[in-house]
Amino acid sequence: MNTAVYKFVETKAEIISIGNEVVSGRTVNTNASHIAWRLTSMGFFVKRIVSVRDEEDEIKDALLDSIRRGASLIVTTGGLGPTYDDKTLESIAKALQLDLELNEDALKMIEAKYRSKGIPLTEDRRKMALLPKGSIPIENNEGIAPGVIIDYKDSQILCTPGVPREMEGILETFLKGYLKSRPETSYYEESFVVSGIGESSISPLIKELVKKYNLYIKSHPKGKELQDPELEIQIAGNGQLDEIRRRVKECREEMEKAILKNNLSKKY
Amino acid sequence: MNTAVYKFVETKAEIISIGNEVVSGRTVNTNASHIAWRLTSMGFFVKRIVSVRDEEDEIKDALLDSIRRGASLIVTTGGLGPTYDDKTLESIAKALQLDLELNEDALKMIEAKYRSKGIPLTEDRRKMALLPKGSIPIENNEGIAPGVIIDYKDSQILCTPGVPREMEGILETFLKGYLKSRPETSYYEESFVVSGIGESSISPLIKELVKKYNLYIKSHPKGKELQDPELEIQIAGNGQLDEIRRRVKECREEMEKAILKNNLSKKY
Repeated sequence: MNTAVYKFVETKAEIISIGNEVVSGRTVNTNASHIAWRLTSMGFFVKRIVSVRDEEDEIKDALLDSIRRGASLIVTTGGLGPTYDDKTLESIAKALQLDLELNEDALKMIEAKYRSKGIPLTEDRRKMALLPKGSIPIENNEGIAPGVIIDYKDSQILCTPGVPREMEGILETFLKGYLKSRPETSYYEESFVVSGIGESSISPLIKELVKKYNLYIKSHPKGKELQDPELEIQIAGNGQLDEIRRRVKECREEMEKAILKNNLSKKY
Repeated sequence: MNTAVYKFVETKAEIISIGNEVVSGRTVNTNASHIAWRLTSMGFFVKRIVSVRDEEDEIKDALLDSIRRGASLIVTTGGLGPTYDDKTLESIAKALQLDLELNEDALKMIEAKYRSKGIPLTEDRRKMALLPKGSIPIENNEGIAPGVIIDYKDSQILCTPGVPREMEGILETFLKGYLKSRPETSYYEESFVVSGIGESSISPLIKELVKKYNLYIKSHPKGKELQDPELEIQIAGNGQLDEIRRRVKECREEMEKAILKNNLSKKY
């Protein structure tokens, strides 16, 4: 059990969304949930998601807070483009007291894209190649601004653009690299639907099973709590794949039996 | 101009989403964007959105951080229900060092709902009426757990459930009450679409107009940056309604003229 907890700590991740459009509610933050879900399914424990505005102090603050909380991986999305409000890399450099310098690899990636279209490389466009010292750029196959990996003390920071398909592509490239050094921790979950049961009826049973199996069990109300209750029950955990799968299945069986035995659905 | 800035500060809001399903990426956080957009359109300046897990320390931490950053209004969503992992009110009470006590008004609301369905009021269900001392409950017309208003120093905290229609109903009830005491600040925005222009082409113009009009101007790429660029331009601001509307319109006109004049679309 200690080992599992230790691995959780090792692979704690946080996500920082950067963009006024997200914070003002103009855009639904599907990027954050995509990143969170991909990380969760790779065995990371996502601890927090923070959305901040395109302001240097906000970005610095959020990043330093994540580092202070001990996140091993911090994924940012947004603010890598050529416009005046794309401030992610500049803000991260300032937060970590790293110089911002022209990264030759990043510049080559950007130049090649513009050249192939016969578009000149302006100062604003070159800005996308100004990375914190020591950064590694990741090719953006769906757009221009490269992703950026920054190692800082015990944390690794992955910066991805805010355009969903660009973010997704860069995240996958990063995760492929990560897989090679992956610890033996997997995420596993099962879910099933029960009808005629309200959340409060099943709550004591869940409480008991969470303790017994040390798993994450959550009821998601799908119907209406009073008129037409329907719950999706999610059972999930992290650990060595065979072991965690066995534990989830055992817990699920015990739960289904208890529901039938106690006739919970009719009692409700 | 000073007045406008002052009003921004007065109505700074933050949103805290509470739920493992959001942080793990299982659920897209549409609640946060709904709340953010409703607050923005009411003239609030939403400063940050934070999503944390169903853990007491996480919730306490996030709440105290929002207060420390000077948020006048903090809206939480999630964790008000009867299950073991619904920890919002308990955690807030601990964070603010307030006692948790049975709120008679809340209890009446909850009892009435269960009674009408002939369902007994268990200990787990009574839990939804345990509110931090001094709280005001808000009737939940779509479910059971009441919303909760807590005044703490210069901040007001509104707790809403995580089920979207319940959260929305309670938020509207709260905003109706807020409207009565509303400062004269409105949010106004216009947007329009331009084709054949990439973000980096229009960036210098935006930079110039942001300075000149003191407005929020943002280009949202809709097409593909290189092959088939299309941008939605959003111009927005807060202030006295007539004044802000005039300023946005003037800025938009200047922008459209500049795009035509410089033939930006062909230059791209």
